[in-house]
This record gives sequence, structure tokens and C-alpha cells, in this order.
Amino acid sequence: MRRPAIAGEALGSFLLFATVIGSGIMAERLAGGNVAVALLGNTLATGAILFVLVTMLGPVSGAHLNPAVTLVMRLRGHIGTGSAAAYVCAQLAGGILGVWAAHAMFAAPIFELSEKARNGPGQWLGEAVATFGLVLTILGTAKVRPDSIPASVALYITAAYWFTSSTSFANPAITVARSLSDSFAGIAPACVPAFVAAQIAGALAAHIVSDILFSDIPKEAA
Amino acid sequence: MRRPAIAGEALGSFLLFATVIGSGIMAERLAGGNVAVALLGNTLATGAILFVLVTMLGPVSGAHLNPAVTLVMRLRGHIGTGSAAAYVCAQLAGGILGVWAAHAMFAAPIFELSEKARNGPGQWLGEAVATFGLVLTILGTAKVRPDSIPASVALYITAAYWFTSSTSFANPAITVARSLSDSFAGIAPACVPAFVAAQIAGALAAHIVSDILFSDIPKEAA
Amino acid sequence: MRRPAIAGEALGSFLLFATVIGSGIMAERLAGGNVAVALLGNTLATGAILFVLVTMLGPVSGAHLNPAVTLVMRLRGHIGTGSAAAYVCAQLAGGILGVWAAHAMFAAPIFELSEKARNGPGQWLGEAVATFGLVLTILGTAKVRPDSIPASVALYITAAYWFTSSTSFANPAITVARSLSDSFAGIAPACVPAFVAAQIAGALAAHIVSDILFSDIPKEAA
Amino acid sequence: MRRPAIAGEALGSFLLFATVIGSGIMAERLAGGNVAVALLGNTLATGAILFVLVTMLGPVSGAHLNPAVTLVMRLRGHIGTGSAAAYVCAQLAGGILGVWAAHAMFAAPIFELSEKARNGPGQWLGEAVATFGLVLTILGTAKVRPDSIPASVALYITAAYWFTSSTSFANPAITVARSLSDSFAGIAPACVPAFVAAQIAGALAAHIVSDILFSDIPKEAA
Repeated sequence: MRRPAIAGEALGSFLLFATVIGSGIMAERLAGGNVAVALLGNTLATGAILFVLVTMLGPVSGAHLNPAVTLVMRLRGHIGTGSAAAYVCAQLAGGILGVWAAHAMFAAPIFELSEKARNGPGQWLGEAVATFGLVLTILGTAKVRPDSIPASVALYITAAYWFTSSTSFANPAITVARSLSDSFAGIAPACVPAFVAAQIAGALAAHIVSDILFSDIPKEAA
Repeated sequence: MRRPAIAGEALGSFLLFATVIGSGIMAERLAGGNVAVALLGNTLATGAILFVLVTMLGPVSGAHLNPAVTLVMRLRGHIGTGSAAAYVCAQLAGGILGVWAAHAMFAAPIFELSEKARNGPGQWLGEAVATFGLVLTILGTAKVRPDSIPASVALYITAAYWFTSSTSFANPAITVARSLSDSFAGIAPACVPAFVAAQIAGALAAHIVSDILFSDIPKEAA
Repeated sequence: MRRPAIAGEALGSFLLFATVIGSGIMAERLAGGNVAVALLGNTLATGAILFVLVTMLGPVSGAHLNPAVTLVMRLRGHIGTGSAAAYVCAQLAGGILGVWAAHAMFAAPIFELSEKARNGPGQWLGEAVATFGLVLTILGTAKVRPDSIPASVALYITAAYWFTSSTSFANPAITVARSLSDSFAGIAPACVPAFVAAQIAGALAAHIVSDILFSDIPKEAA
Repeated sequence: MRRPAIAGEALGSFLLFATVIGSGIMAERLAGGNVAVALLGNTLATGAILFVLVTMLGPVSGAHLNPAVTLVMRLRGHIGTGSAAAYVCAQLAGGILGVWAAHAMFAAPIFELSEKARNGPGQWLGEAVATFGLVLTILGTAKVRPDSIPASVALYITAAYWFTSSTSFANPAITVARSLSDSFAGIAPACVPAFVAAQIAGALAAHIVSDILFSDIPKEAA
């Protein structure tokens, strides 16, 4: 278990979650009620920081920043159980600090709970599809063109913010962290378990499907 | 006929068409009546997912995701007749499932027909120009700088959503699939045949013009 | 004088100018009077098609698509006088056809003259600065990191649409062609000569300044 | 102390600061009061020009364009004290000329002082976080994937415009220069010292943290 890798997961989650929450607050405050305009700002910021973090932290920790990704990497044997547990703790701790830092930056109450209900079969299907696509993108791109992982992850989430009804959380840690923010990107705590279950189902499906699609292809075939 | 290639075309079309329809529904619901804002969201999502899919599926199936592309690749001898037919079936089947998945995610009726009329010589010219440019981009970029194909395809469609009056379907399979969605990105079934004819005309023109422009250039001259 | 190069300049200008005019019409029609939203759509489309065209046509013709660029390349001895003249004719002919194609696609009158006045010292300074920056970007990037030319040209124009009061025509051929369109991107014919003079002044300044900045640097130093 | 490097810092700061101020004026004038739409235009232009300038000027001067970056490079021994001082002077002089050029292009009064108050602990924390992230991005990306520095710097600032309450000045020179513009991107002179102090604190923190995160990693490990 390398210390810089754990630090990388914590710091990366801090910056990622601060961006998701902070840009959501900024966007909602400035958008004058046009939610699509607010979502454009939120999307642009999230996609941009993902490129930066995955580029910079990829060689440090793999830049998971997401327990669903860490789970699949554990299942595929790329990371040990102890390291995986430490990764998830770092993601949650760093990420929640990021949410609170965003609140502090925007002079909002630090500690709060979201009251934004997000539920129903449509949103659960959305989370499953979103996480399936994210994990498939990571596994497939790593196989065929690893240099494109930062751009592909950033652009996948950019698309998924718009094509799923839930705006693609696709990450159990960010789902928990967002429940601690009563803002644009929040989710009521009671809605968290179903989101996380759908995300794990989608991630496991991608773990299986990627073997069908990519097993024939020699590494860096592109 | 390789199975992973067929699966790649089906899955890629599923994700692409789900993105086109889903982001159109999201954008229209949130945009408060400003259609340009809605089109910005729809464009951003479509361009982003195209980069992801073409990067990841290029080495699997060539990432056609479009019968007009498959037709030109057949004419140029890059794919056999049987494989081409299987590709088109996979694009249609996967893509239509993607449309229905988008409906399910947004809690819209799964099965519907579009009532959005899209016709007239301007829009038909638009589809011909759009598909001409798309196929030329694929053939030319493949010759001079193949590493840029994902970015060029994504950015070509990003531009074409705005510079053609039809918002550039440029894809017979997506034209059929969009007729099954009464949403932002839909097209009335009666308008489909003329769109598809214009798309095929544009694709064939690019097939010819690309030989004039690019035949002198050694491979990877860039 | 290679025929594919002339054809490349004509076809590239056709697609570029059709995009500038077409996306301007689309954006203005849909934006509900919010000019910043319209300019976002116009910018996104223009930047995107520039990446595509410079990538694809760079090895064919150098992808000038702009008489100010052709003039500087002639002064630097990268192209002969006869070829330069043919390039400029191809840019104008292809580009004007592109404007008319955009009109046809949007069911607007094909032949018209712009009535949009664009003048005053601020806009002339804007055109000089915009063209200075564009030509400096081309010359500098070609020296230090030629693979980045398509992205740098596309992103330079993306920025310049916003940081100059004239929205950066930065191209004498497109200035003439835009005078033939009474739409969002148009310019009244009487305003054309001053714009073109400012563009040539900016291009010549970049020709000189680039030697100061980049002469010490070995090729592909990046 | 190489002359082209000093010229590069001056010219780069001129274009960068002209873009920040100019696109802010353009965006505010056109956005019809929707501040989120204005910030989208301002963000797009700033991110785009940063990619262009860092690509082109990286091999000339390192493309600091920012005294906080120059300070950290001095602390790390990558630049001498005399050169660092000359860099900062060039950044300030070139950048302030860029602000005045933007005013001239938009026919605004050349010389003015901003009246826009920007203060409070939230914004100071924002500046510290923003500059911390910027400097960490530069140091980390330079270590693991130097080819991605232009894209990462551009996208980091794109995100930071949205996730910090201060819209991320993250640059002492631009903070001073913006105090000379009573426009969208301005800051009242009295608010400058606290912003600069927060920026320096963030930069120093990144200088330290980068050694923890990246010291184990072999150069170009990505």
C-alpha cells in the first residue's frame, strides 16, 4: 500500500467533489432560473477537472476517485483488498472535505443535508447505465488506447450529465458526499442506497461485457 | 464475421442513440424554451460520446455506428457484404434499444412515433452536405492522421449540428431510430425516406471526392 | 501548382464558410434574442470545424483557407506566387459557394448583401490584433509543436470570437464572403476594405514578431 | 536571461489578459443579464487562449504568464532570481497593455479603476484553493505527462472559473491588471492585496504537496 497513492486518491477526490458541488452552486446562483444553462456550467467544470485529475494522478494512484472503479479493479486483480479499502476511505474522506470546502468558498453553511429527492426506476436505470458506460470506457480505453483515458473519462461524464435523467452520479463516494450538500448537485440521504446499488450493478455488468468486447484485441491495438 | 465487432456496433449504437435522444429530452426539459440553449446541451453530449465510442470501439469494429459509413467501407473493400449487412442490423437493433432506454430513463412512454416534421429542399441539402462532410472527414483523416479520427468525428458532428438546417442526422440508422421518439431529436416517420436518400447521396459523393483530394498523399503524411 | 492542393483550399473554404454562416443563422434563429447564447453556438461550430479541416487538409494544401495566411507563407517562401494566387482564388470561390450553400440549407434568399455595419477604430484594432494572433499562432506552433496546429488554430479562433469587438473575422476571404450574407455573421460591403487592411497589417506584424520570438528555438523543441 | 523568453512572457500576458478582459466585456454586453451565460463565454475564451499560449510559448519562456508560477519555479531552482524578476515585470507590463488594448477594442475608456468589490473569507479561500490546484497541476503534469501541460492548464482554469466563488484569478499579475478595468472581470484595487496573499499561500502549499505526491514517480511515467 503506497502512501502517495492513498494521498492521490484523497486529494483528487477533494478537488473533484469540490468542483462538482462548487460549480453547481455557482451555476445555480448565476443562471437566473434556466436550469439547462446551470447544467452547462456544471458539466463544463466537471469534465474539465476530470481530464486534469486523471492525467496527473493516473501514474500516482490510477486516479480511480470512485469506489465503483476500485471495486472492479479489485475484481480484476489490479489492486489488493487492503489497498482497495484504503482507496475507498480516502475517496470518501477527501471527497467530503471537498464538499465542505466548496460550502466554505461559497459562504454556505458547512454542514447540511440535501433535501433534493432523486428516485424512481428511471433514475435508477440511469445510474446503472451511466456507471456501466463509465467502467466500460475505462476498461476498454485502457486496453486499446491508454493515452486517451483522461480525455475519454472526461468526455464520457460530460455526455452522461445530459443523457441520463439523474445527471450521472456514477460514483458511490460522490453520491454519499452529495447528500451532505443542500445545493444544485445534492441528493437526499434517503435516496443514496438505491443509487449506490444501481451503480454497483452497472459497474459489474461492464466488468463482464468488457471481456466479451475487448478480449480479442491485442494491447494498444489502436 | 467477428462476433466482438458485431457486438461493438450494437453496443456503440445503443450508447450513441441513447445519448442523442436522452440529452435531447434533458435539454428540452431544462432549457425553459430557449432552443439554442437546448441544442448546446444536445451538441455537447453527442460530440463527447462520439469521441469516447470511436476511441474505444475503433479497434473493435471500426466504430462505424452508421450504415452510410458501412456502405462506403463496403464500396472501398474494407468490409465484406455479409459483415456489412450484420453491421447495419446491429446498428439498427442496438440503436433502437438505445432510444427505448432513453425513454425509460426519462420516464417517457417507451414506444412512440415522432410527430416532428422535418422536410423541404433545404433540409435535404443539409443532410447531403452533412453526410458528405462526415464521410470525407472519416476517409481523409484515416489517410493523413488516423490518431485524430475520434476527435475529428466528434468535432465534425459538433459543427454540423449547427451549420445544417436539419441539425445533421447524417446517419440512416439514427434517422430511423429517431422516428421512434416524440422528443427534441425526433423526426416524423414520413420524413425518413428523403433524409436517408440525401444521406446516401452525400456519402457516395464523399467516396468519390476523397479519391481526388487524398490519393496523392502518402499514408500518415501529416 | 498541385491540383489536389487547390481543390483542398476550395473545398475547405466551402465547408468553413458554410459553417460560419450556417451556424450563425441557426444560432440567431434559436437563441430567442440572447446574442451571447447565439455567439456560443456560432463559436462552438466554427472552432470545431477548424480542427477537422486543418487536421484533414493540412497535408493536402497546408489548410490556409485564408488569404492573409497565404500572403505570409508567400513572404516566407513556403509557396510560389502562382500557387498563392491560385490559393486565394480557390478560397474566395469555394468560400462564396459555401455562403450560398448555407443560405440554400436554411431556405434564405441565395443572393443578398449584408446591411450589418461593422466599423470604427475599436473594431479595426480588433481585426489587426485578431489576425496578428492567428498568424503568430500558426507560425509559432508550426515551429515548436506542429502536431498541435489543428487544436491551436481552432482554439485561437474560439477565443478570438469573444475577445475582439468584431468577433474576429481575421480572414480577408471570409470578410468578402460574409458581405454576401444578410445574417448574424454578415458585414456591410462598405465596411470590408478597412477590415481587410487591418487584417493584412496584423498578419505582417506577426510575420515580423514571430522571427523575434521563435528564431532561437530548434524545430520541434517542445 | 534570454530576450525571447522575456518577450514571450510579455506578449503571452498581453494576449491572455486582453482575452480575459475582452471576453468579459463581450460576454456581459451580449448576455442580456444572464450572468451564467456571460461566464460561459468568458470561460470558453480564457481556456481556449491558455491552450494556445502554453503550447506556443512553453518552449520559449516556459509560459508562466503568472508571478505565482514564476515564484515557485524560482523556489525549485528552475529559473534564476534576475530572470524571475524580469519575468514578473514582463507579465505585469504586457498584461496591463493587454487590458488597455481590450478597452480600446471595445471603445471603453482606456484608463479606469474597477469598482467591483471581491472580498470575504470565502473568496480568499477560493483564491488559495484555485492557485494551489493550478500550481499542483503544472508541477504534477510536468512530471508525469509533460505533453499534456497545455490541455491541463487550460482545462484546470476552465473548471476553476466555476468551482471557486471568486472565479479563480489565481494569478497576482492578472489580479493587479484586472483592478484597472471597470468591467465584468474587474476587481476593486483595495481588494487586490488579500487576493494576492491568498494566491501566494496556495502556490506555496502546492510546492510542498507536489513533492509528497510526485516524488516517487519516475519522469514521464505515464
